[in-house]
Amino acid sequence: MSLPPSQIIAALAAIVGPAHLISQPQQMGPYLNEPRKRFHQPALAVVLPGAVAEVQAIARYANANGVALIPQGGNTGLVGAQVPLSGHEVIISLARLNGVRNIDVAAGTMTVEAGLILEEAHKAAEAEGAMFPLWIASQGSARIGGVLSSNAGGVNVLAYGNARELCMGVEAVLADGRLYNGLTSLKKDNTGYDLKDLLVGAEGTLGIITAATLKIFVQPEDYETALVSLTSPDAALTLFQAMRERTGARLNAFELIPWIGLDIQLRHKMLDADPTADTSPWYGLIEVSRMKGGPTGTLQAALETAFEQEWITNAVLAESLADRTHMWAFREQMSECQSREGASIKHDVSVPIANVPALIAEGIKAVEHLVPGIRAVPFGHMGDGNIHFNFSQPVGADPKTFRAGADPIHTAIYEIVLKLGGSVSAEHGIGQLKTELLKQVKDPVALEMMHAIKQALDPNNILNPGKMLT
Amino acid sequence: MSLPPSQIIAALAAIVGPAHLISQPQQMGPYLNEPRKRFHQPALAVVLPGAVAEVQAIARYANANGVALIPQGGNTGLVGAQVPLSGHEVIISLARLNGVRNIDVAAGTMTVEAGLILEEAHKAAEAEGAMFPLWIASQGSARIGGVLSSNAGGVNVLAYGNARELCMGVEAVLADGRLYNGLTSLKKDNTGYDLKDLLVGAEGTLGIITAATLKIFVQPEDYETALVSLTSPDAALTLFQAMRERTGARLNAFELIPWIGLDIQLRHKMLDADPTADTSPWYGLIEVSRMKGGPTGTLQAALETAFEQEWITNAVLAESLADRTHMWAFREQMSECQSREGASIKHDVSVPIANVPALIAEGIKAVEHLVPGIRAVPFGHMGDGNIHFNFSQPVGADPKTFRAGADPIHTAIYEIVLKLGGSVSAEHGIGQLKTELLKQVKDPVALEMMHAIKQALDPNNILNPGKMLT
Repeated sequence: MSLPPSQIIAALAAIVGPAHLISQPQQMGPYLNEPRKRFHQPALAVVLPGAVAEVQAIARYANANGVALIPQGGNTGLVGAQVPLSGHEVIISLARLNGVRNIDVAAGTMTVEAGLILEEAHKAAEAEGAMFPLWIASQGSARIGGVLSSNAGGVNVLAYGNARELCMGVEAVLADGRLYNGLTSLKKDNTGYDLKDLLVGAEGTLGIITAATLKIFVQPEDYETALVSLTSPDAALTLFQAMRERTGARLNAFELIPWIGLDIQLRHKMLDADPTADTSPWYGLIEVSRMKGGPTGTLQAALETAFEQEWITNAVLAESLADRTHMWAFREQMSECQSREGASIKHDVSVPIANVPALIAEGIKAVEHLVPGIRAVPFGHMGDGNIHFNFSQPVGADPKTFRAGADPIHTAIYEIVLKLGGSVSAEHGIGQLKTELLKQVKDPVALEMMHAIKQALDPNNILNPGKMLT
Repeated sequence: MSLPPSQIIAALAAIVGPAHLISQPQQMGPYLNEPRKRFHQPALAVVLPGAVAEVQAIARYANANGVALIPQGGNTGLVGAQVPLSGHEVIISLARLNGVRNIDVAAGTMTVEAGLILEEAHKAAEAEGAMFPLWIASQGSARIGGVLSSNAGGVNVLAYGNARELCMGVEAVLADGRLYNGLTSLKKDNTGYDLKDLLVGAEGTLGIITAATLKIFVQPEDYETALVSLTSPDAALTLFQAMRERTGARLNAFELIPWIGLDIQLRHKMLDADPTADTSPWYGLIEVSRMKGGPTGTLQAALETAFEQEWITNAVLAESLADRTHMWAFREQMSECQSREGASIKHDVSVPIANVPALIAEGIKAVEHLVPGIRAVPFGHMGDGNIHFNFSQPVGADPKTFRAGADPIHTAIYEIVLKLGGSVSAEHGIGQLKTELLKQVKDPVALEMMHAIKQALDPNNILNPGKMLT
């Protein structure tokens, strides 16, 4: 860093106005403290631009003066992409750029600014009778820019795709302050390289997304939701394939949950009542959408077949919105519930769908061998091959000691994932948590291409340096 | 070009074997003559590698010696991306790399080599009871590498997406011969920049795609297909929106065809019988898929509503596979039928769906003003906002004189397209046909980003120089 911090702070305050720059460490907490409390570096300042032109001015200044910028949305990321690494960075929060620029239900598009909270984007679409179908646990605070920069997934990827697939175009400020105007609401446009998909999922290392045109959808007339009892992940896979054949793209969600998740939630009174039909080693949360004028009973008919075929042993069908909400709460509390049982070690991984049963079986076996008494809590998006392969400490173990033994567990899980053709980061990205891992597992030519692209678009390494690529 | 051609030819022949290199001009015809006969440059040679390692060796040699390479698939592209520009290039045909490496119906994926003909890919999926749902008119000769490099669309984009969306990962040889191994069959993988989508649609300027993992789908149980009579594109838009609400992603196709298309096909005996219900200014070809166990009659019920609402004036429902084939032949012959009526001037454009009626109305008005008697033949993928905005010469006009007046017509159409937020190349790409147009209409920062990426990945400008970017 060549310039004294006070000079940088003064220059940035001049761009956004002093009221929109935070340089007192005690006021920066909300921008520094990330959900899993793994990263603890300070920032030089937090700057909150109120217009795209201010974002451009900040980038121009940073690029000219070698100031590292960390684009930040709702600070909900799980791999530290949005918080400091060196401690000398300036966080550029998009929170004030939170407008809805346009909604066009007939065109099926909505253009919103990067700072809009995901839940507000849901509401904006709903107010026009449409739906933006990206649902993640952090939607009450995650902002669109971060959702796109991390290519967020969630529970409806099966039917609607992840953030990348739900985004038609972006507007972004480049490292040197130029504005890329890629907002478009075209379903087809073959006029050049796919820059949108390069910026989406780049974790703010190639540009600062300031706005995006998103796909919105006709709301289904209704949903049919069930919790089924399953003997094994193999049975879940068979059921999933059969459901896909019967319902195609109307299969909204197919989530897998192990019995221990129910047990923890009931013991800690996170659920009022047991939403399942009976005690079973595995549960599946299945949801089918019904379009206007479409037939009812699709899910029930499919589950009757599944029962006859012995793919499921029992089922509860939601009979009201309250039932549906209750079933989804069981699923959505899975990540949080582990904290009630001491320390956890987590892996956000994916494999080709057909390999999910092998992943779960081999992963549990390997890790139980390493840590006797460890409790496997693998759950998640079966239909996407994306399992949150989590472990809770043995009952009564010391949390610190347990956490200190994480590395061999990570190694064991990632080895199995890679052997099965999988990814070591399905949804959450690389950030600063997995840069070393990425170097070990990624195709070396892919890494070289990424470095070449980073160098081409951000030659002074201003945007989120040290994240994703080191 | 620093080396004498004979030396280049000898070196390449040594890599692939003399039997797989063509240097006699009279034998190069199939590799040089493209469908619309617009481009007429020779090539230095055509080289046909039989293995990925040979593609790498060719690229290494070309990069070291400044030899321009044009990757070519089935030579079906419509914008000249796959044929020479300077006349000094070497065409590298992927035709011999045409294997199916793997099909996994349970995983919903198929890995094939770049030279596989699209129709063979269809057959390979069908042989396993699955479906690869990318259908284009040239599928009998188009090859997967070209389909991906041009990000082909076709008639089923509405339900399944274009080539980019149907591709999960690619393997590609870079300009200097390095092999990027991005084959994956993961639905979720957030480990770095989206290199796949950068290579798809890059028209062979960033890498030579050698293989790809494609999505395959469960075959619907059945299709319901109809040809409806419509008074206007506005009525078509209203019907499209209503169909989307009722059928969601089961709406496979929604194609718009003007009366003149029927007239031409009937007069030239391209159809045995009239597939439509009556004489109408516009027709819509609509297809809905029925999944296993799903209800029948969805389309009929929707059309009854449409008739009551006066969105359509008549309809014919396909009652047999022969009916369906007949309806689709009417649609698929639209592009070719214009050649029976003399010269044509064509535009492959897209606008936000809601703007399709305005595009058609304003486009016809502007061009009829320029050329009295010109016959507008706008047709195509209404559901994607993608209209092939074509014109046939006035009856009895001189074809050459008509073609010579194309520029003001292009200008008029592209002006309206851009005013309506559209794209001047929806499906066909840029190639060498539209490089100047691209410079005029593309966001200048987007062009700068494209140049920076090209420079980063192909610093010696070996891969398809002068295509897309000049």
